[in-house]
Amino acid sequence: MGAGEPARCAAIVGTGLIGQGWAIVFARMGWDVRLYDVNAAMLAEARGLIQQQLNELERHGLLTGADAIAGRVHVASSLPDALKGASYIQENSPENLEIKRALFSALDAAAEPLAVIGSSTSSIPASLFTEHLSGRHRCLVAHPVNPPYLIPVVELCPAPWTSQEALDGAHAVMAAIGQKPVLVKREIEGFVLNRLQGALLHEAFRLVSEGVASAEDIDVTVKDGLGLRWSFMGPFETIDLNAPGGIADYCARYGGLYRSIGATQGECVAWEGALVDALSDERRTLLPTEDLAKRRFWRDEKLMRLMRHKQNNGDDNG
Amino acid sequence: MGAGEPARCAAIVGTGLIGQGWAIVFARMGWDVRLYDVNAAMLAEARGLIQQQLNELERHGLLTGADAIAGRVHVASSLPDALKGASYIQENSPENLEIKRALFSALDAAAEPLAVIGSSTSSIPASLFTEHLSGRHRCLVAHPVNPPYLIPVVELCPAPWTSQEALDGAHAVMAAIGQKPVLVKREIEGFVLNRLQGALLHEAFRLVSEGVASAEDIDVTVKDGLGLRWSFMGPFETIDLNAPGGIADYCARYGGLYRSIGATQGECVAWEGALVDALSDERRTLLPTEDLAKRRFWRDEKLMRLMRHKQNNGDDNG
Repeated sequence: MGAGEPARCAAIVGTGLIGQGWAIVFARMGWDVRLYDVNAAMLAEARGLIQQQLNELERHGLLTGADAIAGRVHVASSLPDALKGASYIQENSPENLEIKRALFSALDAAAEPLAVIGSSTSSIPASLFTEHLSGRHRCLVAHPVNPPYLIPVVELCPAPWTSQEALDGAHAVMAAIGQKPVLVKREIEGFVLNRLQGALLHEAFRLVSEGVASAEDIDVTVKDGLGLRWSFMGPFETIDLNAPGGIADYCARYGGLYRSIGATQGECVAWEGALVDALSDERRTLLPTEDLAKRRFWRDEKLMRLMRHKQNNGDDNG
Repeated sequence: MGAGEPARCAAIVGTGLIGQGWAIVFARMGWDVRLYDVNAAMLAEARGLIQQQLNELERHGLLTGADAIAGRVHVASSLPDALKGASYIQENSPENLEIKRALFSALDAAAEPLAVIGSSTSSIPASLFTEHLSGRHRCLVAHPVNPPYLIPVVELCPAPWTSQEALDGAHAVMAAIGQKPVLVKREIEGFVLNRLQGALLHEAFRLVSEGVASAEDIDVTVKDGLGLRWSFMGPFETIDLNAPGGIADYCARYGGLYRSIGATQGECVAWEGALVDALSDERRTLLPTEDLAKRRFWRDEKLMRLMRHKQNNGDDNG
């Protein structure tokens, strides 16, 4: 936001964990945020929870002025009140098609004429809940990772009728608030992130089910191996740098090996029954159920420190 | 190494990049290291290159006393000279079965009776080059990631005749020098790390070939999304923390989604032809060929800073 420009305004509809995270992402970049949720109790506690998370981020050196940021987050008295003046709307209702269809009808009816409407859905393509809308051209999926204020990637996935203008607008909004928008060019189950995660998980489940390695050792292989490079380079850049002549050279050298490996990776094992029992036993031995909550706190601390490290090291440009 | 204990001695046979990396890993933990290579020119320059890398690590605060560490690295005059007194031997010859067969014959003949012999091979199972040896029980694969002094995972993969004692011994050596040994319980193509990498890469290639996303956006999805968590948790711990009741709960909630995704991930696209041309064009636009070397330097700087960050944050225990 340049000096003298008016603050831009985003509406966050649905104020559970994901909605709270979005509010932080917008407010810390100077946007005014208006919160709404049909669940009055959830709406009532949202600002307090946002303030708590902002305080945590400030304590970790990830932002300054938590109170001023929280001051830009307002609770709206109604859906139309939330949408008034908002140039961008982020929807975060439960993963239920009927709920989303009804909510998008209400959003499209009350939104400002030029507002773009993104859905946080991780699994429902926008075409299934926007086809009936007169403003369907301005609707799309903007799928975040939780928490979005620590994990910046946002998957933008248009419906077939989403306009290029709306897609560009959502991309510009995400870039403006410091997120990392990626384009999923057509609707596909799992979008990109969960398809990549699923591919690796399927192989991990297979290796456990075939007795090749323990879950613990697979975790070590990633966190003390593959995941180190992947935290600042993607998989393509990684292989591009791993052969003298770049990615084409890598494919010529190792494509045969990976094709041979791939021929034994086609069939997915089911994530159920004795395999899941054994995995659960192993995990619960490493981390008892009563420690799960504490370990989630540990994870979030780790993420905050990692993000601060990345900030301090200018991750994009070296 | 406890006070008063004699320094332990490792032999590094094959002193290219990987062998140099192993020398650093052993020497920085107080081991005496003896280098040997049939290529006299490579052997002659190894110590100097090791000293350079140690200086870099000291400059980044990843170790102190680079000169003292380099002082523990000795160039042997012959293979028997290198193996004399070594309780652990790491072989790093080219990925060629005949070379490894011949070299392991020489290693087994000259090694101390109780020495364990590990191979750095990334693709050849130990059974193919150790079957004929009288000491085949003490041979196994100990596959590192380059550079091993920054990426600690080591895949230990026994041949069918590798003794439990030798496997335990190699595991203890790797743990003692601060690496992260994982057990690949039986010989399998690609071991664990490259199978996991391959699974994710196959999906990445597929998404590009089907026009779902650009290589650049797939890289962003990993480095600003999945890879952040995977740099300090593995894939199983990640999903264990992503459902209220842990991994069993996660499988019950999302197993169906991932199975459905998996059903469309079976067939691998070939890493060749127009697909690789397009990927190479995209990468070379982002990073011209003449900048590849510079970017590898950037990658190694990033890794060094990330490892220092992990050291400072007590990565294993929070």
